[in-house]
Formats: sequence, structure tokens, C-alpha cells
Amino acid sequence: MRMYDIIEKKRDGQELTETEIQFFINGYTKDEIPDYQVSALLMAIYFNDMTDGERASLTKVMVESGDQIDLAQIEGVKVDKHSTGGVGDTTTLILAPLVASVGVPIAKMSGRGLGHTGGTIDKLESIPGFHVEITNDEFIELVNKNKVAVIGQSGNLTPADKKLYSLRDVTATVNSIPLIASSIMSKKIAAGADAIVLDVKTGSGAFMKELEDSEKLASAMVSIGQQVGRNTIAIISDMNQPLGFAIGNALEVKEAIATLQGNGPKDLTELCLVLASHMVVLANQATSTEEARKKLEENLKNGKALEQFKLFLGSQGGDTSVVDQPDTLPQASYQVELPAKVSGTVSKIVADEIGTAAMMLGAGRATKESEIDLAVGIVLHKKIGDDVKQGEALLTIHANSEAIDDVKELLYQNIEISTGKIEAPPLIYGTITK
Amino acid sequence: MRMYDIIEKKRDGQELTETEIQFFINGYTKDEIPDYQVSALLMAIYFNDMTDGERASLTKVMVESGDQIDLAQIEGVKVDKHSTGGVGDTTTLILAPLVASVGVPIAKMSGRGLGHTGGTIDKLESIPGFHVEITNDEFIELVNKNKVAVIGQSGNLTPADKKLYSLRDVTATVNSIPLIASSIMSKKIAAGADAIVLDVKTGSGAFMKELEDSEKLASAMVSIGQQVGRNTIAIISDMNQPLGFAIGNALEVKEAIATLQGNGPKDLTELCLVLASHMVVLANQATSTEEARKKLEENLKNGKALEQFKLFLGSQGGDTSVVDQPDTLPQASYQVELPAKVSGTVSKIVADEIGTAAMMLGAGRATKESEIDLAVGIVLHKKIGDDVKQGEALLTIHANSEAIDDVKELLYQNIEISTGKIEAPPLIYGTITK
Repeated sequence: MRMYDIIEKKRDGQELTETEIQFFINGYTKDEIPDYQVSALLMAIYFNDMTDGERASLTKVMVESGDQIDLAQIEGVKVDKHSTGGVGDTTTLILAPLVASVGVPIAKMSGRGLGHTGGTIDKLESIPGFHVEITNDEFIELVNKNKVAVIGQSGNLTPADKKLYSLRDVTATVNSIPLIASSIMSKKIAAGADAIVLDVKTGSGAFMKELEDSEKLASAMVSIGQQVGRNTIAIISDMNQPLGFAIGNALEVKEAIATLQGNGPKDLTELCLVLASHMVVLANQATSTEEARKKLEENLKNGKALEQFKLFLGSQGGDTSVVDQPDTLPQASYQVELPAKVSGTVSKIVADEIGTAAMMLGAGRATKESEIDLAVGIVLHKKIGDDVKQGEALLTIHANSEAIDDVKELLYQNIEISTGKIEAPPLIYGTITK
Repeated sequence: MRMYDIIEKKRDGQELTETEIQFFINGYTKDEIPDYQVSALLMAIYFNDMTDGERASLTKVMVESGDQIDLAQIEGVKVDKHSTGGVGDTTTLILAPLVASVGVPIAKMSGRGLGHTGGTIDKLESIPGFHVEITNDEFIELVNKNKVAVIGQSGNLTPADKKLYSLRDVTATVNSIPLIASSIMSKKIAAGADAIVLDVKTGSGAFMKELEDSEKLASAMVSIGQQVGRNTIAIISDMNQPLGFAIGNALEVKEAIATLQGNGPKDLTELCLVLASHMVVLANQATSTEEARKKLEENLKNGKALEQFKLFLGSQGGDTSVVDQPDTLPQASYQVELPAKVSGTVSKIVADEIGTAAMMLGAGRATKESEIDLAVGIVLHKKIGDDVKQGEALLTIHANSEAIDDVKELLYQNIEISTGKIEAPPLIYGTITK
């Protein structure tokens, strides 16, 4: 078998066999196939797409390229959730304890990552003492005991995907549905999930700006999941404006606590309930999403979800008193309100630019080496469709510097106030089950 | 400027500026841009093509990447010819003295190359004493004195094209019209031609098997020529069967001598007259191809073309007596006729497979290191449309080995004899002038 023939075959629009995909992925992982042949193939895939079968094969082969986490010792169906990423997305912090509170085991492997804010682990580290440096055995024991634990990414998971992603990143081949879908799914599968709920974002703040593309990506991932024997479902949710109110690490933890107390932002709470309901059903802890939702709503009301959060934090060294006194979380030195320049109705909040403003404040990493400021960020007071009076605060900037004129300028540029009736965008655009 | 953005732009179907093309070609030539980014761009070009402007820019930038031969000291318009390659293509050997005989300066830079037979220089080296190791000054002096000289490829011509071609060769991006056209044209332009006549082959023995693709390639090259100020014209000629009768080095020299004596194969003679007429017109030595053709036909009849060939050979050390006694050229030990198995009309002679048979005899190079046997090859006696009786010779094999059963087998497999009326394919499919 020759890599040349594989490139040519894909270039000419023919379907690659699993053996051919194996040859290319394994050869590349072992440095036996050079970057320049792989990047030509990636560009051919960008143009000619991959069939469902090719996508599943690529995912499987990438999973097999490295370690696979064995969660067999955890009782029950292990359900994982993945979001394609957005601004102010605090769902993981809420979902993990909420779903665990109804008896579903949540064995979460999480990362730090680059972006507008830190990853789930960075956010959790706003809580004094909390840490994810636990052994695999401790991790499994914790999940069996408490139904929820979070561990940092460890082991040599999907090295093929890592290598491929680095190459895609410099050859303009990131934005390809089969490549994105297999990359995400291979990581989730290697991390040991039996079933997967996907939150595919759509809109200005999402990787996929167009609904049609988001639907294609969701279908691609659900199809891969089904083909490799992992029950998978996807929700398409809005990312035209940030989710919830908070964008920032400690600020999002605070918002997660409020949500677990039943006092969270409406959109964030709703999305968490929808995602959690599907997780509970996939874990066989309810026969319908309606039944699951009822249980989950109950646990938000009766305090069980919040208790579960405390149990989880405490078992990984976290100071649980912050849950009752969220003001002890890291606080920024300056809280500056951004007043509306005119009266009207908020008609646009460009999510990714608001995220960039948070990153300028220090909430996120631009490079792997960047230090994150856990305290800083933005808290919205108005969202699309809300009326606002001139001078009223649109949002509060939490900063550790007084020199934030450029941040203010960027925020003003990306929040539009109009007159006339403005509808809030829908929160959920659809559910993809196959 | 970033290579990433250039890849993305081409991937998205936008037109690259000359500055962007310059950035990528110069960066790649200097090893500042890695192979893997260039191969991704090449695949994007494969899919999204290039505009006329991009093709001209790419050609210009590749010409400027290395040395350019200065032929200014040669009087008159320097016209070059290029063939896209076929089987039994002896035209250069005939065209150079023929066109020179009517006063057009022919300063030919030629190569050895890989293929079914050697290159023009290999063929000429069948003539005892002939050599192309002359200095540039000698070369120019010879052209001014005799109107024709051949020099081996020297200098650092189009290094960007060499590097790009090596990469295309291993990434399945050779077969792209804009890339082929700019590669060919950059070499011709760097070699100093003022005007260019292109012989674009079409059919089973050609690089382009389909007439439509051959026309596209021809138009692409003519357009590049016009844009960079080199008068260019293209002929589309048949390569479904070999051109002329001879395939082999000394065998083709013999055929060239016969043609210059006015006794050549009909198709070879005709194609030479057509190409030569265009060369004479582009060199301003005739106002129409009809006028040019008349002069050329005259010089074939009156012996001037043959005299010009002798003058040319002699001035570069060649033994001119072979022109009068072609049997003194290298001869193979065995001449074996291939008899027709049935009676009928020849309906097919698969050109590239006949070429492969010649190569198996030793007429061509498979790798740069291969030794060529100048004596061996194949001489056809029948071409498509010719009637043949069972047992009559289809061709003669000139071999230096008796073990040629596999060659015979391959030849039989690729010559078809049918019953019923068979038309010979047309020799010339068209002329592309813009």
C-alpha cells in the first residue's frame, strides 16, 4: 500500500477502505508518512468529504492509536457530554453534579485549553484546594462512591488526532466536518464514554456560524457514535449571544452555584435541563426525557444537586464553604459598569467579540504558556430582547487593571441597541438523534 | 503575509495576487515555507484551479526564481518548440535544421530525461563525435553562424519549478492544468525563447488522454505566453498511435534523416511542416503559414534542410558521413519481425504500451541512473487503417538480446486487427492561438 495512491483515491472522490485509513493514520503516527503527504490528503478530504463509513473508520483508528481509558469498574452506563465551545458556557460545572444527583455516574476527564476563558479545570480551580491530580484508581473509586469526579487529561489519548490537528491548524484544513467530527468523537470514545450527549453550538460565537453547518456536524458525530456502538445524541443550541450572564472563571463558578440553587439564568438553566435529561435517559435512569427532567428539576429545588456539588468539590480537596459564600471566590479589584448610550432594546450581542473582551481582561489563554486571571471577566445584565434605558448598566466589567478603555470600546462595538420589537433568538434549534 | 492565509484564500476559491504567489514561491524556494503547507496549497489549486492572471504570475515568479538565459546576442526572433511528450516523437531532430534552413535562429537547450526513449541529446549522441558540451559563448556564436545549435541544460533554471514538481510528484498534484502549464512555460521562458510553438499531444500515448484536457492545457499555456509577452501558439496533435514508424534513439535519427531527405513517414513529415510553418511565422520570416510552408517544402526537396542538418552536426563534432550512410549508425544485433496473427485492418496501436516495449528493450531510462541502449527499438510497418495479411510483418523489433518473448507478448496485446473499414485517426485536432 502506498500513501500516494490513498491521496489520489480521495482526490478522485473514491471511498477509502478502513485498511487504507489505518495505513495512513498508523503510518503518520509513527512518523513513517511525511507531513506533506498527509496535508495533501487532508485538503483532498476538505474538498471531497468522507462517507459515513470513512468517518467511523477514521474515528476508530484514531481511538486505537493511543491509550483508551477503561471505565469498566464503574457501575452503570457512563455518559459523557461534549460542547463544541462557546462563550460563557458554564454547563459542565452544573451538569456534572446535577446528573450525578439522580444516580448517573459522571467520570469526567477535562482539560484547560485555549480560549476566551479557561477550561472546566481552570474554572474549578477558583475553588480553594480543589485539584484534579488524582490517580486513575482514585478517580474510579470516587465515581463509584460519589457518582461524580473530574480528572485532568492524562495518558497518551488519541496521539493520531493530536498530530493531525496540529497539521490541520497550519494548513487551513481545520474547518472540515468529517475531520472535526472524528477528532471530537475519537477523544470522547478514548476517554471511555458508553454514551455521549453533544451540545453543538451555532451562531456568531460558535465555531460553526451557520445552522446548516452545525446540523451537519451534529449528524456526523451522531452517526459516528452509532457506528462505533456508543449511543450518541446531539442538541443544537444558540451561541449568537453568550450563554447565561457570566464570562470568566470564578464568575462562571458563581453562576453555576446559583443555577444549582435554582436561581440561575433562564437560558443556562434550560439548556442544562435539556442536556441533563438526555444524559439521564442514555444512562437508563429514566425512560423518557420528561421523566428525567422531572427528577432533575426536583433535585434543583430540594437542594440535592447543590449537595452533590459540595460532595464532589470536597472529595477532591475543595473548600465547600464557597458554595454557601460565593463572595469568597477570587474577586477582581475593579467592578466597572458599562452604561447604555441610548434607550431601546438590545438587538445584538456578538458572542465571540464579548469573549475576546473577557480574554483581553485576562480570563483566557492566548497561548499554552499564558497565565489565567481567575477573577476577571464580564457579567451581562441585559441580553437580546431586553429593554434598556440610557445610562442603565448593560454589563459589569470585572478587571484587575484600570486601563480598560479598549475593552469598553470593543464591548460597545458589539452590543447593539435598536428600537422596535426585538425577539430573543431561540435557545435550542433541534435535537439530532441519527 | 502568512502562508496559512494564502492556503485558506485559495481553498475558498479566491484569486491570489502576484505578491502572494511571489511570497509563497520565494519562501518555498528558500526553504522558509515547509512542504506540508505547500502541498496543501497545491491540492487546493488542484480543486479550485487558477485564473489566467494567477497562472501568468506563477510562471513569471518561477522564471525569476533562478537563472534566465540571455539570448539577446543572437540576431532575430528566437523561436522554441515544446512537445508535451509522446512515443516516437522525432520532431525536434527534424524541426531544428528545417526551420534554421529558412533563416530562423534555433538556439535549442535540450535534455536527456526519463521515458520510453532518451531525450533529444541522447538521440543525437547516436552520431559518432556529436556533443553538446559547449560554452554559452560558443553556443551563441554557433547559432549566429549556422542558425542552429543544441546545448545541454545548464545553470540553475527555474529551481522553484523543480522543487514544486518533486513535491507534486509525491502528493498526487501533478495532474493539474495550471500547474502543468506554468511548469512547462516557466522552463521555456527561462531558456530565453522570444516565441514558442507548443505541440500538445492527445490520446492514449499522451499525458493528456482526452482531447478536452489537451485543449485546456494548450489554451492555458498560450494564455500564459501572451500574458508574459512571449508570442505563443499551440497545435493539438494525435498520440493515440506512435508518431512516424521508429521508436528508439538511433532508429529515430535514421527516420529524421529520411524525413529531411523528403522520404519520411507521412504523419511525421506533415506534423513537422505544420509546426515549422508556425515557427517561421512567429520568427517573422514569413507572413503566413502557407508562405512558410512553401519555403520549408522547397528546402526538403532541394536538400537545403539536409545540408543544414549536416552543418549543425559537424559544427558540434558529429560525423556527418552518417547522414549519407545511415546504416553506420548503432545497429542492434537482432532484427525480429512480428508477424500478424490474422488478416484484417489495423484498428489500434496503443502508443504508450508500444513505448513501454521499446523501454523494455533498453531504449529509455526508468531512473536517472539507467544506461540507454542507442541501437534498440521498434520500427512499425503498419499503422492504424493499414491492411495487413496474416503472417505479414506488423513491425520489426531491434534488440540486443534474444530473450524478447515478453516484449513480443506486450506488442501483440497492444496492436488490434479488425475487419471492416477502419479510419486512421486525424493527425492534427486543432490550433490554439489564444
